[in-house]
Amino acid sequence: MLAAVARRGQLLVQDVPDPVPGPGDALVATHACGICGSDLHALVHAESVAEMSLGAGQPAMFDPSADFVMGHEFCAEVLELGPDTDGVIARPGDLVVSIPAALTSTGLQAIGYSNTYGGAYAERLRLTAGMCMKVPDGLDARRAALTEPMAVGLHAVHKSKITPGDAALVLGCGPIGLAVIAALALEGVEPIVAADFSSRRRDLAVRMGAHEVVDPGDEAAIDAWRRVDGRRPLVVYEAVGVPGMLDAAMRDAPPQARVLVVGVCMEEDHVRPMVGVMKELSIQFAFGYDPMEFAATLAAIAEGRLDVTPLITGTVGVEGVPAAFAALADPEDHVKILVEPGGPTTPEPIRPT
Amino acid sequence: MLAAVARRGQLLVQDVPDPVPGPGDALVATHACGICGSDLHALVHAESVAEMSLGAGQPAMFDPSADFVMGHEFCAEVLELGPDTDGVIARPGDLVVSIPAALTSTGLQAIGYSNTYGGAYAERLRLTAGMCMKVPDGLDARRAALTEPMAVGLHAVHKSKITPGDAALVLGCGPIGLAVIAALALEGVEPIVAADFSSRRRDLAVRMGAHEVVDPGDEAAIDAWRRVDGRRPLVVYEAVGVPGMLDAAMRDAPPQARVLVVGVCMEEDHVRPMVGVMKELSIQFAFGYDPMEFAATLAAIAEGRLDVTPLITGTVGVEGVPAAFAALADPEDHVKILVEPGGPTTPEPIRPT
Repeated sequence: MLAAVARRGQLLVQDVPDPVPGPGDALVATHACGICGSDLHALVHAESVAEMSLGAGQPAMFDPSADFVMGHEFCAEVLELGPDTDGVIARPGDLVVSIPAALTSTGLQAIGYSNTYGGAYAERLRLTAGMCMKVPDGLDARRAALTEPMAVGLHAVHKSKITPGDAALVLGCGPIGLAVIAALALEGVEPIVAADFSSRRRDLAVRMGAHEVVDPGDEAAIDAWRRVDGRRPLVVYEAVGVPGMLDAAMRDAPPQARVLVVGVCMEEDHVRPMVGVMKELSIQFAFGYDPMEFAATLAAIAEGRLDVTPLITGTVGVEGVPAAFAALADPEDHVKILVEPGGPTTPEPIRPT
Repeated sequence: MLAAVARRGQLLVQDVPDPVPGPGDALVATHACGICGSDLHALVHAESVAEMSLGAGQPAMFDPSADFVMGHEFCAEVLELGPDTDGVIARPGDLVVSIPAALTSTGLQAIGYSNTYGGAYAERLRLTAGMCMKVPDGLDARRAALTEPMAVGLHAVHKSKITPGDAALVLGCGPIGLAVIAALALEGVEPIVAADFSSRRRDLAVRMGAHEVVDPGDEAAIDAWRRVDGRRPLVVYEAVGVPGMLDAAMRDAPPQARVLVVGVCMEEDHVRPMVGVMKELSIQFAFGYDPMEFAATLAAIAEGRLDVTPLITGTVGVEGVPAAFAALADPEDHVKILVEPGGPTTPEPIRPT
């Protein structure tokens, strides 16, 4: 089968052996898989991801010097169930999504950051059959594939413990920032103020539920919040993930504010603890989601309460994954490009009506 | 009157004009005033304290290039009430403590970090009469002077939202770390594991309520917690306040842990946000206390539930403040030296029975 293989910082499209479903596995065919900003980071910083993971006290997820296939935002069709899958709900022909984690006899494997459980930048992959969630009738694979990144936003919002009556300031309107905005809107938070240098992304922020958007080149994000509100308890969502953002968020936050860090900064960063102390800030880091949040996100998309259509901006076949990674460097160009086996060899736009 | 004046990084003991109580003020005579570790920092880093304060969005507390008198952990006797003090409870002759803040017509002044409201490294000072709390009968000025630093510990413990059933790891057993330990013990937290390189301070940690103490030169603090507990939800109290401690606390903390930062690190520091993200850590900064916490601390000391006697290790007159600052550099030597006008010209030990 065709796969986009990550090898020492490069993406190589090549034929690889078909995965064989082991005990408890489902063999599935990729219908659509979003390209995640973390993958762009991870391709370049794979060593440090593995190191950080060790430093965080978790078992090494994968050997970054060996080949791996990324792709963890997938919707796929069940082709075949492996041994020991009696009683699982998923059946061949079902369209499914899953938390990108495989339960194996030797522990958890992170699908997409594993040398043995490849991700969905490929025609086929193995999932844990019992983890698969059936996509509700009427929901297409493209929108279902957005379940994973949107669940990250929902989890970040839950983790921040924001409640209606609080205000939200979202720094960065990439896919994760937009997912946070959508989740805040679902929770009834008002106002939601969002900042991004890209006019395209600011427009999308409004479509996802932001009440005010600002180009930080024109006006500081915090000033935009002060202009439209300035009174409510504030939660700042840091969804940019580059060095300096955390320090800037701490500098700008009002006293007693909460900063929720969901942007993945893989480099060392600097902060001034005294600023945090004097304002008694709280910094909460968020990562991933739990199964309930994943299922709730799938349901919200299926029921139309969460419209992800504006975020889907491109499609590409497996052959075109390297070109899609390159295209995502320009924030005016794309938000979410879906890898669709059999799709175009270079990224083509999908413009929602 | 005699005062230890901070002038451009130096402490100069000299005669200065007596303060004159303005509207709402009480003129008080210092009985005892603890020397705070923050003052040791602030003497050297006064410019950056003022800058940080501005960066934190607060009005400049003071002009660090002009003279100021420090000392904010005081117990004092009311000498005289100024104009506009009808109805205040404090009367001449009363022994009082107060939150070190003066309410003035132009805003709040931080007593001890103000060019107009000097602190208690002096024979006399001005307080806001309405802010004074009468020291309960039977409580001496020495122990009452510990209200302020012990309230910092109580506030940090409240801010961390720790509850019985959680475990606590306290990094650093200086006065603030010891205050945190005492407050944790009052709250019924168990186990309290405490780490310090100084054997003297480890002994005091046990006296204040720590269940296990560790020399981080012998065993990592986190390993000591794992050895005696390792199961309960953990709150790590960072009470050292030097660069690198926050990063180390984040590196060592188990997933989902809370880090409460009460150590005042006035320098820029480095962190690895990815470590925080992968473990979903929460970092809460704490500063000061509220009036209820201050009053509760005074009551706990007066009623004997909080025995601060072991922390009072030295006494010195105003003349000896510079020598006391120097003596505090050695953690084996002193914990809390009290400035007592008329006391010895160099620090003398107070050894509790």
